Amino acid sequence: MVSNKQVILRNYISAGFPKETDLYVTTGDIELKLPEGSNGILVKNLYLSCDPSMRPRMKKLEGSYVNSFTPGLPISGYGVSEVLDSGNPEFKKGDLVWGRTGWEEYSLITAPHLFKIQNIDMPLSYYIGILGMPGMTAYVGFYELCSPKQGEFVFISAASGAVGQIVGQFAKLLGCYVVGSAGSKDKVDLLKNKLGFDEAFNYKEEPDLNVALKRCFPEGIDIYFENVGGEMLDAVLLNMRIHGRISICGMISQYNLEKPEGIHNLIQLIVKRIRMEGFLVLDYYHLYPKFLEMIIPRIKEGKIVYVEDIAEGLENAPTALVGLFKGHNVGKQVVAVTRK
Amino acid sequence: MVSNKQVILRNYISAGFPKETDLYVTTGDIELKLPEGSNGILVKNLYLSCDPSMRPRMKKLEGSYVNSFTPGLPISGYGVSEVLDSGNPEFKKGDLVWGRTGWEEYSLITAPHLFKIQNIDMPLSYYIGILGMPGMTAYVGFYELCSPKQGEFVFISAASGAVGQIVGQFAKLLGCYVVGSAGSKDKVDLLKNKLGFDEAFNYKEEPDLNVALKRCFPEGIDIYFENVGGEMLDAVLLNMRIHGRISICGMISQYNLEKPEGIHNLIQLIVKRIRMEGFLVLDYYHLYPKFLEMIIPRIKEGKIVYVEDIAEGLENAPTALVGLFKGHNVGKQVVAVTRK
Repeated sequence: MVSNKQVILRNYISAGFPKETDLYVTTGDIELKLPEGSNGILVKNLYLSCDPSMRPRMKKLEGSYVNSFTPGLPISGYGVSEVLDSGNPEFKKGDLVWGRTGWEEYSLITAPHLFKIQNIDMPLSYYIGILGMPGMTAYVGFYELCSPKQGEFVFISAASGAVGQIVGQFAKLLGCYVVGSAGSKDKVDLLKNKLGFDEAFNYKEEPDLNVALKRCFPEGIDIYFENVGGEMLDAVLLNMRIHGRISICGMISQYNLEKPEGIHNLIQLIVKRIRMEGFLVLDYYHLYPKFLEMIIPRIKEGKIVYVEDIAEGLENAPTALVGLFKGHNVGKQVVAVTRK
Repeated sequence: MVSNKQVILRNYISAGFPKETDLYVTTGDIELKLPEGSNGILVKNLYLSCDPSMRPRMKKLEGSYVNSFTPGLPISGYGVSEVLDSGNPEFKKGDLVWGRTGWEEYSLITAPHLFKIQNIDMPLSYYIGILGMPGMTAYVGFYELCSPKQGEFVFISAASGAVGQIVGQFAKLLGCYVVGSAGSKDKVDLLKNKLGFDEAFNYKEEPDLNVALKRCFPEGIDIYFENVGGEMLDAVLLNMRIHGRISICGMISQYNLEKPEGIHNLIQLIVKRIRMEGFLVLDYYHLYPKFLEMIIPRIKEGKIVYVEDIAEGLENAPTALVGLFKGHNVGKQVVAVTRK
């Protein structure tokens, strides 16, 4: 038996921002050996991912595509892990994997949604970021849904986040004009100075988002990569160009509200002949090998960079996760359980 | 000189339902001969179309894809007309045409957006209905945008209107399960008994649209053909199936409001991976010959029928037009200027 530190959900959180006290860290124990006859996988977790989609799972959900967390048990999400023992012929001791795991030091995974990590010359934490779900999300939401073309005007909200920063760099590589919004001066600087965006603004300092968008896009927006919802979406609708496309990846501004804000400008979909489409990356994992083939060389050549915000240790995991919904992270929020 | 009865807009109407007194009928006069050297077309108007898209033109619009009407001048819209004199080589005296014309007995058309009517064995009024813009709108919005498949669940709002009744029949011909909403018992009866819808309901008598939709679609909706917007769209979003499609043709419930209602359930676009797309039929007129080839035989065989609500004479035109926004018409609202 060894000790196993875990991050537990105290109770369901129906509305409002999650607080650190909604989670707690405790220490259980675990046998570092699979039970006799198990076809599960025992892993040591290395990196855990803080994702916006974890907020809905803190509510009591019914009939959703995801399951609620269970109060009193460790929460779960995407992670990078090392296989310690395996009853599943697809994985063996020593494999590095990414996929669904628990927020704890060690997890026994019985229904694996795991990818084996082949390219170990990349930072391992990238597999919960640019080389994992967020990277695939950017790839699918931009290339598959937006039909982007060189020279088009692209706007990305939550642009310095795990997904947004990749979408912006994809759009720049294609020769688009790219603007991002974010919630602090540091993030805006990052977008302009490190990530190569043509323009960026701090939405918290704009008294009128419509005015901000008109300033950045005097000719209008061809493609909007939507991460936030609410007021921003309404303002974007007023600034779309004819035959524009909106890829709806997330609506993080709405996840903590009891009732989502109303969107008033949908008539623009007709006037401007706009296509607006939501997606879930889980429908597209058959494209994952093609995606890796495209992105790994670009990372190696320095044409695409990735900014992470790494919290050290499970003790700091609750702060990191609740901070995500307040926008405290600059770049992809990662929890390093242990460094490898 | 002959007298020329005309329907005039008194003043811009910013918000609220148009009233009959917002329009008036007057009699001017007109020379039934083109001015020397004109390349225009002089027509006698036979049928005029009452269309929801005429409501925005009663406001003072800026930067829209349509022009506002001019207070003090006749309003304009789609009509079926006979050419009396032509300075345009594409049209000659005696031709029957449909397209943009004035709400008056005779119009001098200088920038023609007109189609020559070839199949004169059809009722001429059909060319502002099933064989004209509304027919093309149904065709494009359903076949081009919705990717419909046999057996799918299709919902249509304003289903007995000029466009909705055609969409419903297209969907039935394809083997879909089709439900429509409308605003009176007569309309609901029409949908169920004459137009072949599987089910229909009167939205004005449903205390909860979500409940009504769940009753009609226990398995959910694959395709929504949107004509009304507002509360109905919000309820539909809750009832869409995975990979559903929403074709946004119009939002008539919103046209008379100062500020459009808010739509709160767009998060469903992500959860259900829904594609929602607005369109304008004017982008698709290259498909018109193909459309006629498809629909005319089906009308002749009685596989598709068309219900019109015809007001007689320009004197009754204001009542007919304002009645459209109150839902007084049963079927496509037409004004017969003179019978041919």
